[in-house]
Amino acid sequence: MSRYESPYTPAPLCGPARASFYTGRSMYSHGSVWNFVPLSIREQLLGDLLRDHGLSVALDGKIHHRPDELAMARFGIGLDTVPGHNLMNGGFEIIDRYEGHANPGPKHPYVAYLREQGYDSDDPWEDFVISGEGPDGELLSGWYARNCHLPARVSEEHSETAYTTDVGIKFIREQGDNPWFLHLSYIKPHWPYIAPAPYHDMYGVEDCLPVVRSAEELKNAHPVFKAFTDHVDSRTFHRDDVLDIVRPVYMGLVKQLDDHLGRVFQALEEAGRIDDTLILFTSDHHDYLGDHWLDEKELYHEPSTRIPLIVYDPDAAADATRGTTDSRLVEGIDFVPTFLEEVGAPVPDYLLEGRSLVPSIRGESGGAWRDIAVSEMDYTFRDARVVLSQDPRKCRGYMARGERFKYILWEGFPPQLFDLQEDPDELHDLGTDTDYATERAELHEHLFTWMRNRKLTVTLPREDIVLVRETILPRAGIHIGEW
Amino acid sequence: MSRYESPYTPAPLCGPARASFYTGRSMYSHGSVWNFVPLSIREQLLGDLLRDHGLSVALDGKIHHRPDELAMARFGIGLDTVPGHNLMNGGFEIIDRYEGHANPGPKHPYVAYLREQGYDSDDPWEDFVISGEGPDGELLSGWYARNCHLPARVSEEHSETAYTTDVGIKFIREQGDNPWFLHLSYIKPHWPYIAPAPYHDMYGVEDCLPVVRSAEELKNAHPVFKAFTDHVDSRTFHRDDVLDIVRPVYMGLVKQLDDHLGRVFQALEEAGRIDDTLILFTSDHHDYLGDHWLDEKELYHEPSTRIPLIVYDPDAAADATRGTTDSRLVEGIDFVPTFLEEVGAPVPDYLLEGRSLVPSIRGESGGAWRDIAVSEMDYTFRDARVVLSQDPRKCRGYMARGERFKYILWEGFPPQLFDLQEDPDELHDLGTDTDYATERAELHEHLFTWMRNRKLTVTLPREDIVLVRETILPRAGIHIGEW
Repeated sequence: MSRYESPYTPAPLCGPARASFYTGRSMYSHGSVWNFVPLSIREQLLGDLLRDHGLSVALDGKIHHRPDELAMARFGIGLDTVPGHNLMNGGFEIIDRYEGHANPGPKHPYVAYLREQGYDSDDPWEDFVISGEGPDGELLSGWYARNCHLPARVSEEHSETAYTTDVGIKFIREQGDNPWFLHLSYIKPHWPYIAPAPYHDMYGVEDCLPVVRSAEELKNAHPVFKAFTDHVDSRTFHRDDVLDIVRPVYMGLVKQLDDHLGRVFQALEEAGRIDDTLILFTSDHHDYLGDHWLDEKELYHEPSTRIPLIVYDPDAAADATRGTTDSRLVEGIDFVPTFLEEVGAPVPDYLLEGRSLVPSIRGESGGAWRDIAVSEMDYTFRDARVVLSQDPRKCRGYMARGERFKYILWEGFPPQLFDLQEDPDELHDLGTDTDYATERAELHEHLFTWMRNRKLTVTLPREDIVLVRETILPRAGIHIGEW
Repeated sequence: MSRYESPYTPAPLCGPARASFYTGRSMYSHGSVWNFVPLSIREQLLGDLLRDHGLSVALDGKIHHRPDELAMARFGIGLDTVPGHNLMNGGFEIIDRYEGHANPGPKHPYVAYLREQGYDSDDPWEDFVISGEGPDGELLSGWYARNCHLPARVSEEHSETAYTTDVGIKFIREQGDNPWFLHLSYIKPHWPYIAPAPYHDMYGVEDCLPVVRSAEELKNAHPVFKAFTDHVDSRTFHRDDVLDIVRPVYMGLVKQLDDHLGRVFQALEEAGRIDDTLILFTSDHHDYLGDHWLDEKELYHEPSTRIPLIVYDPDAAADATRGTTDSRLVEGIDFVPTFLEEVGAPVPDYLLEGRSLVPSIRGESGGAWRDIAVSEMDYTFRDARVVLSQDPRKCRGYMARGERFKYILWEGFPPQLFDLQEDPDELHDLGTDTDYATERAELHEHLFTWMRNRKLTVTLPREDIVLVRETILPRAGIHIGEW
């Protein structure tokens, strides 16, 4: 088991990050730049690549995938066809697709499950899962921070995290000795920030990390950063009472997840699969929860962009790294090539922009790794665009995180720069400091090189180049420029 | 009628340039980086965009389009369906698809036409269209430069240029007063460089422009340039006898084209359509024909990259520019938005990377135009890659042509720079001259900006942003970060 210290999300936002997790390609390349932006029909997904290798990828939980329905209509690809099903579901075989960040709707299996357990309501998710109760028995919605200290009305064993775990364990047990791949994708921790007992008050403010922010940050603040701190939800997190309520509950939700993962590992042991199952634990992004005067994610401070990553590989080849940490710059686009290499599937190098972590997991030197980790964002859909009167085509920022410095290129605004060695809390923006022009220029150039290395030709496997040179050209009977 | 002095092809190679002409997008974005690289299924083509507006785009001639057959198979899109037909044919309605740079094959209508005209042969294209005759009546193939001074065995009226013109005129006549759009796409001038009488000897060496090259160019030559000058076909054009044969014949082929375009214009007049038909004359690239010790195209000297562009707009609004020239930097990606604006069709701004020429045609100030014209190339498939032992992923060059300087960024090699004011023949490469570091840095940065402005999100029309913000988000019943 290795824990990685510097893994970065390809984009600090659910949809784009997951599109990168599932394609092995950067947001720039797959083009799904915000949650409601469909993923182009041209993208090939982990599920597609593994299915071609005879292994389907089961989904239990959230994917935040919006299909390219315009293209499906253009080409007459029906929802009832196998390709249509795969496009609609991000290439996954659906065990249980549960998005959870919005009301799952009356037809979702989780809602039926809740009714079976006796939660009698037209909308048990709204009334039990995300609501608490006031002193007179009135419902108090977990959508609102003021209610998040209350225990959710659902009992812990029927909560979202427990349900998703149950579905996953059932799947594992049913597989027996067959090979399988499961995307166990929990919605929590996530808003609505309300937890079932006993997790709702398991932690207090004194257990939480201090809030990382300073009054100085807001003076001469970068325009995009400033606009995000003014978003309605960020302003809510400027309040101490909100921090004092939400941060302990968030820790409770993390602890609940931890406990249920213990159940998953136990099920793997009972099924005799703990010794032949690779486990990769990660997240699509983190959450500011008030750090830097912000809520949610999308910007590039460490609390938003740096994600957890723990890899457990039972293979003896990985013994060398068991219990160690690895500080290399990892990107979320590295997961697909890692999975493909682990199961021995062909790696479509012409599509994948990340690097397999297998050498790192096995303690082998893989040579030079990468100069920068890149993360991307697009705030076209956000209030910040309106406030800044920014052209929708220019609402882009790119993070280039080097060994010591983190550079952020903003279209139409000055850059940002943080010295992670001297200022690990990123409270001092050096983006316009004349003493750091060299550091900025270097990371700026790295970013241009990175962009030129994107893989935008997705129609021709590289091995076909030889085929074209050696067979198609001569066969065409063409004699160019011969005397 | 305006003639443009500085129009650049998006890529000095047939397939990628045409993919840009038909999509309105740069090679970088559409990803079809060489002739045999399929155009991704995600691309929407001029024919698709105009068809949605009720106007089909007829093809008479060459398109050099390779469809994304892997994706078609993946999604089960049959060749016998309308979407399948459009994908196979680059979005065009086929009047006559004639690629001509290779043997058209026994089933092509042109071959049947030749037989009807009495060209009795198993392969009339090979035996008549591209062959001449020796003193003893033996066939001498036009594939070989040594034979290109001979008249082709086909008579002029049955030659490729005449045939394509006949098909086009027939189409125009049949349309009557209906609106139509025709892509009249001649193969010639093009190898095999053999012309029918009288065009085969209409010009002599003394009529040709002098060959632009110097011995100095080959000293300390840029590695990619050097490798291309060593290609077999380039070496053929190092020979004076080849230049003396091919260049006059090439001029004959241009003159033949000119004469047949006269027939097209006359047909338009006779059909009463010369006053309501926009005509845009251009080419996908030029041909070195020995300039700079090179054959063919692909590199970035003016003889390869700068294309002809003449626009005739019969509208009175265009009277202001009739007979004038326009020196702005035009790119081949500007044609699609021009056509769409001219016919009043919706312009999908989220896809198109070029700018409509309509303001220029009408003499209106369109404000600032563009800083650089960009052209792109990928030599992965060429011998140069092998000779230079270059990683297939690094075989890329980008041209940024500014007002005065032309900068070329090469992956893995030093850049090139030409001062078009002091050195219009591009004989002095300033790519490593320390006096020009500022000019290079400026164009380098322009190129990065250009790359960041590519349009890689092709699944969501921009107007849908408002829709998402105002309808989808609130309707989802989500309350993020409220107290």
